[in-house]
Amino acid sequence: MAAAAKSNSDNLTLDKVREALIRQEDTIVFRLIQRANFPVNSPTYDEKFASFSGSLLQFVVKETEALQSKVGRYENPEEQPFSPENLPPSLVPPQANPPVLHPAAASININEKIWDFYFNQLLSLFAVPGDDGNYASTASSDLDCLQAISRRIHYGYYVAEVKFKDAPQDYEPAIRAQVLHHRVIKPYSKRG
Amino acid sequence: MAAAAKSNSDNLTLDKVREALIRQEDTIVFRLIQRANFPVNSPTYDEKFASFSGSLLQFVVKETEALQSKVGRYENPEEQPFSPENLPPSLVPPQANPPVLHPAAASININEKIWDFYFNQLLSLFAVPGDDGNYASTASSDLDCLQAISRRIHYGYYVAEVKFKDAPQDYEPAIRAQVLHHRVIKPYSKRG
Repeated sequence: MAAAAKSNSDNLTLDKVREALIRQEDTIVFRLIQRANFPVNSPTYDEKFASFSGSLLQFVVKETEALQSKVGRYENPEEQPFSPENLPPSLVPPQANPPVLHPAAASININEKIWDFYFNQLLSLFAVPGDDGNYASTASSDLDCLQAISRRIHYGYYVAEVKFKDAPQDYEPAIRAQVLHHRVIKPYSKRG
Repeated sequence: MAAAAKSNSDNLTLDKVREALIRQEDTIVFRLIQRANFPVNSPTYDEKFASFSGSLLQFVVKETEALQSKVGRYENPEEQPFSPENLPPSLVPPQANPPVLHPAAASININEKIWDFYFNQLLSLFAVPGDDGNYASTASSDLDCLQAISRRIHYGYYVAEVKFKDAPQDYEPAIRAQVLHHRVIKPYSKRG
């Protein structure tokens, strides 16, 4: 939950971005330590929670993100949801500042990969086996970790943007070639 | 979000309680640091958020606690809600372990005082004046701080319980006198 680069490109310098990244890394480390206070607590991930169509974890993620969406969390492009389907709109009046990022950058969401990595590789490295019954806290702790990791990774938007703004002449040809590459190559690739 | 003293009195020793308290204090410190990443962001506390009957913060607290209640957070006596009115019931099957605490202890909730102290005294000591527009993150960060402080304070239940269990003969007369004192004196006192 480190402060966002405000939607004002004057605020966007490499120093400020670096400072934000360091804070975000501290947040990740601390949240992993918090999650490690609980054992794995596998019932949190059982296929079906009450009448919900997924696990207790998925219920917490979906409902928390819906609530956070209403209060404008996803108006910040570095905040990307893990359950983007049918998110309710923000009820917070939009900020008057023009957006810093190109729409193509702001629309990137690689949370599916982060989710997969967190649950299938990372979690078992730091949470001990066992069940202490604290499923609600386990689920919110998982979401805290996921959100912190996601924010840090998506914050790369701003690193790219600052570097681009410092030397657009160096990056433009590469970007144009990449766009062309995507247009020509992507429809035939397997991962779409 | 430190692990709860499990609902099993065999697990309740002064060493384990002490260990939990230390972890909870680390959590408080870290969450205050997280909140300090944002300025005060006073629109988070404006009287009316959208069509909700309170502030954006109150909306986030109420909705988050309702969600957490459904996944069983408040089945743990050290987890006390800030918006206890009309909380939905837990959808998690109850734990088979007998409760550790006397019902009178488990029903104590001093969150109103914690809320008042946090917003009227603590917050302005560590959050700088200003508005960066991150109201959603500010509100969840405030709730993180409130919950961590509340858990640490209500965890005193277990300290009292362990001390009582170690020397019931020393505490029983005092407890009985206190109950009598409350019965006789309280109806006439101003704070009820």
